[in-house]
Amino acid sequence: MFGDVQARRLTNGFKLTRVGVTGVKKQVTVRRKGMQGCLNCIIDVYVDLPSNQRGSHLSRNLEIISEAVEMSVSQPVGGLEILCRDVCKELLERHEYATYAEVSIIADYFLNRTGPSGRISKESFKLMAQAYGKRGNGLRKIIGAQAIGMTACPCAQEIMRDMVRKELLTLGLSPEEAFEFAKRLPVATHNQRGRGMISIQVCDRRCVSLDEIIKIIERSMSSRVFGLLKRPDEALVVQRAHNNPKFVEDCVRTMAQKVVESFKYLPDDAVIVLKQINEESIHQHNAFAERSATMGELRAELGAEDSARANASKSEVEKND
Amino acid sequence: MFGDVQARRLTNGFKLTRVGVTGVKKQVTVRRKGMQGCLNCIIDVYVDLPSNQRGSHLSRNLEIISEAVEMSVSQPVGGLEILCRDVCKELLERHEYATYAEVSIIADYFLNRTGPSGRISKESFKLMAQAYGKRGNGLRKIIGAQAIGMTACPCAQEIMRDMVRKELLTLGLSPEEAFEFAKRLPVATHNQRGRGMISIQVCDRRCVSLDEIIKIIERSMSSRVFGLLKRPDEALVVQRAHNNPKFVEDCVRTMAQKVVESFKYLPDDAVIVLKQINEESIHQHNAFAERSATMGELRAELGAEDSARANASKSEVEKND
Amino acid sequence: MFGDVQARRLTNGFKLTRVGVTGVKKQVTVRRKGMQGCLNCIIDVYVDLPSNQRGSHLSRNLEIISEAVEMSVSQPVGGLEILCRDVCKELLERHEYATYAEVSIIADYFLNRTGPSGRISKESFKLMAQAYGKRGNGLRKIIGAQAIGMTACPCAQEIMRDMVRKELLTLGLSPEEAFEFAKRLPVATHNQRGRGMISIQVCDRRCVSLDEIIKIIERSMSSRVFGLLKRPDEALVVQRAHNNPKFVEDCVRTMAQKVVESFKYLPDDAVIVLKQINEESIHQHNAFAERSATMGELRAELGAEDSARANASKSEVEKND
Amino acid sequence: MFGDVQARRLTNGFKLTRVGVTGVKKQVTVRRKGMQGCLNCIIDVYVDLPSNQRGSHLSRNLEIISEAVEMSVSQPVGGLEILCRDVCKELLERHEYATYAEVSIIADYFLNRTGPSGRISKESFKLMAQAYGKRGNGLRKIIGAQAIGMTACPCAQEIMRDMVRKELLTLGLSPEEAFEFAKRLPVATHNQRGRGMISIQVCDRRCVSLDEIIKIIERSMSSRVFGLLKRPDEALVVQRAHNNPKFVEDCVRTMAQKVVESFKYLPDDAVIVLKQINEESIHQHNAFAERSATMGELRAELGAEDSARANASKSEVEKND
Repeated sequence: MFGDVQARRLTNGFKLTRVGVTGVKKQVTVRRKGMQGCLNCIIDVYVDLPSNQRGSHLSRNLEIISEAVEMSVSQPVGGLEILCRDVCKELLERHEYATYAEVSIIADYFLNRTGPSGRISKESFKLMAQAYGKRGNGLRKIIGAQAIGMTACPCAQEIMRDMVRKELLTLGLSPEEAFEFAKRLPVATHNQRGRGMISIQVCDRRCVSLDEIIKIIERSMSSRVFGLLKRPDEALVVQRAHNNPKFVEDCVRTMAQKVVESFKYLPDDAVIVLKQINEESIHQHNAFAERSATMGELRAELGAEDSARANASKSEVEKND
Repeated sequence: MFGDVQARRLTNGFKLTRVGVTGVKKQVTVRRKGMQGCLNCIIDVYVDLPSNQRGSHLSRNLEIISEAVEMSVSQPVGGLEILCRDVCKELLERHEYATYAEVSIIADYFLNRTGPSGRISKESFKLMAQAYGKRGNGLRKIIGAQAIGMTACPCAQEIMRDMVRKELLTLGLSPEEAFEFAKRLPVATHNQRGRGMISIQVCDRRCVSLDEIIKIIERSMSSRVFGLLKRPDEALVVQRAHNNPKFVEDCVRTMAQKVVESFKYLPDDAVIVLKQINEESIHQHNAFAERSATMGELRAELGAEDSARANASKSEVEKND
Repeated sequence: MFGDVQARRLTNGFKLTRVGVTGVKKQVTVRRKGMQGCLNCIIDVYVDLPSNQRGSHLSRNLEIISEAVEMSVSQPVGGLEILCRDVCKELLERHEYATYAEVSIIADYFLNRTGPSGRISKESFKLMAQAYGKRGNGLRKIIGAQAIGMTACPCAQEIMRDMVRKELLTLGLSPEEAFEFAKRLPVATHNQRGRGMISIQVCDRRCVSLDEIIKIIERSMSSRVFGLLKRPDEALVVQRAHNNPKFVEDCVRTMAQKVVESFKYLPDDAVIVLKQINEESIHQHNAFAERSATMGELRAELGAEDSARANASKSEVEKND
Repeated sequence: MFGDVQARRLTNGFKLTRVGVTGVKKQVTVRRKGMQGCLNCIIDVYVDLPSNQRGSHLSRNLEIISEAVEMSVSQPVGGLEILCRDVCKELLERHEYATYAEVSIIADYFLNRTGPSGRISKESFKLMAQAYGKRGNGLRKIIGAQAIGMTACPCAQEIMRDMVRKELLTLGLSPEEAFEFAKRLPVATHNQRGRGMISIQVCDRRCVSLDEIIKIIERSMSSRVFGLLKRPDEALVVQRAHNNPKFVEDCVRTMAQKVVESFKYLPDDAVIVLKQINEESIHQHNAFAERSATMGELRAELGAEDSARANASKSEVEKND
């Protein structure tokens, strides 16, 4: 009876790369090292579709998601990337025509943070998880996070420090004394809200620590930020940021170094994506930096640079503008 | 033939406060003092609906908007608030059952800005216009804008300056000398992207200058921002912001003062709304301040404060946290 | 030592209507009739500021929020509007200079929903809560929700049904038979995603049922929507929506009626706001309707209409476009 | 004097994949076949950065953008993808250390559309343009658009039509007569706002017609949508959509077919991306389909399917859920 519908199907029978549903909101119960509780998730799932089939069975996607979410209540999932993988497997199982499956999750996450004066308060983060793969080829899992911090521009600070030095000369200091003394002062620059992101492709046996990922992001900026800062705390944050000025590029490179140092057990072919967006206070637009590489590539560059450090003074490149 | 539809209408015949369409995107040609060209607008229009009528005629709203937009091509409108008023009038004309009409427009706006070193470049702003009123009572028109700038926190700077003074004492300066010298230095604080907004209720005869509104917003923050800043320009912006630290409250009060000074011809009953949102660099959340008042109230407060200024030193109130 | 900062304060000493922080993300533990668990909240808090004080103590706002959130872990709050009220009280307590306080919360909320074929699944909603008031005048509390549903246009359906009737005449049916028979058919119209919102001002003694509010919103549209619908369920939803076509105005009026019927214990001066936004499938723009009124006004109109119903056939008003 | 800053640079000298600025808002004057005027653009630009250089010169990016935008006033650019390419070239020129450049632009676009009853009105669209490439390897240019339309679900309509047939049997029609008659009726289904997107990689010599791209998107859905529809127009749009029901997959496949037919001159290695997002009226979530392929692949599939059409009746695959 539905024959004519299906006959129409063949008049434009192209393969489709991804077909699915996006923006599915669910609460998932997670138990992971350092994390236990409910995460509010936004979920996207896709499979491919062969050229000779008109439609993908979208309601199966919702069945799979609902069952996985339901089961997490009694048996919490070990992580969002694990949930992504399990849903991926089930997608390939129930869409028998599919050769590819992909699942992405974004979730809000809250974590205790100790402020400069010891005060503990919850800060919010974003988690990003993904799994994807072709049938029979294994699935790749990715886990990541986004954290907000503060960056202070080293370039503008250099110029301001130069102004400070000139003022110090008027006090009778020698150029060398002025140079040294200026280093001790909290010299102005522009600073801004920054957003760092790390995503790490994980292998099956080891669970990557989300808290570690978030710590790396936070510590790769000029300073962490806090919801609650009394005046002395606020001064400490400002001082820390100005003692540790960072370009958007510096943030990404610091993340790269810390990822290499912290995740020694990850295989060389694990893909790492590192991003930093600085919501510049002196512009309407944002500054952006990104590195996408394998662990192997990052390791090689860190090694290469270790030996290069000896020659540092010879190869200085100026940032003139 | 449609009788049964209408009969159902009376089973829940409540009045409706506003019925209309939102998110209508149109290009409007405007010719105003200092502005000529096409604005990309998002338009919302509403009328009220009596309890004995089932539906408002929504397509009439689109006819009115389309005609007004079309006409602006050959005969540019004198301002978005004028367009709002004209559309309002027409809404009341064609929705004969309506006793109230309201129109809001948001538009992107570009304006030449001269950077610190004389370089001219276009910066982007938001315009907000509105008209509303009850039939027979006249229409109120509102025009406003939003601009982005930079704010530097005076509170953190005070503490940092105190640290600078203590360092200066180690050079052998007296407390008084250290105090004076520290004032000349660009001392660090947290600074951030700020968004200021002014909306002004205008009377029919005079056209409020949008460029004046935007200038006031920009100059009420610690510094303006620019798309293109070469290193020396960047330093000038940082210096200016740090010489002019502003709380979110200061920005709104500066706007209030400048609005009173600049728009002398506005009547005492014109409603003024002033807002500032600072996207704090030391927090994930924003700081916010707002004043909503009539011109008469602002004028009275400015006058009151003029005489109060003499007693300034007696009534100091500290901001301790 | 901070004297000069404070002296500057008086040069533009306007009162400020609202000063505070926006976008504070926190997890709040709530125990309310029919709800128990953690809500991810976005919180805004404000107080006013007298003209003779330069700054509001923004960190106190964060202290109050953090303490309230922290306390909810061991002692869950009875509702977001209760949390808003408690924070408001504390704001007035700790900002001794403030005469006004205001707190708003938006949160994601998940609730079990039974689909057409008995399948149970979680759907997502938005909660909105607020409290505000002047010192000494008591605080007003508001609780509300937003739910997504489906609306089918009655106007287009009428025309389509007319076409169906004409086709039926070709089968030899009489006009009366065609008229009756067409009523039994699921006739096409445009249908779309709709978002309904109700906010209710609550008095202290009684807790308004959020589940009741959400049910009213959902049942005021043409049909509820569900995350998971197998083919027969999908047909039931489509059928239900097309048997129950609703203008954007109808949705608001149905909400009004159901609110009057369901919340009999609310006092006449409680303010009710009802909104519906239909993301029209035949337009890029949205249709919008709103009623803002006191319970007393809604009650009066419902009563007036009861007696008016007898005269229904006399006062038909057509919707011609 | 800046030596110590640069020395720090080498402690984490990783290569960076992309460094740049995002969210730069500019007005660009374009003159292209069928388009002349100002486009409000949001621009992102990136270059890569070698491991031995601390920072990319972000202000050069703004200089390049500003100059290109400025020049477009007197000499309009031939298309946003051309602007992207020109800016890319200049990025590689002025960032002498870069080996890769990338530029993306998103812009609002307005186009006249003739409604069902001949009424002409402006509708809004989104344009997306991009250029990127490695130094010495040539640059790839991409132009694309997003348009909004209406989709009606064929699956739910089949079930509803079946219900209609059963009703028709009660009139004494034979199953065959009922089957044929039901085809003539505008039978209900769920329909919704859909967003289609096409991006096409273009070669240097030929300019792809944006109006053609937009037409293809619009005509690949069940019906186009219009800002202004009077009642009879509205009925025509509803009728058209219900006579032409489309799954999200159908929309993408129709786009694929039309792209192959319309852009015959594109080389086989041009990359085509086709997407459709349906904002389902029966769900809170969206349906999504995508095809990413080369023109050669699409051509091969269209050919393959032409010959496959003869066997259509043998290979019917049902969509059961």
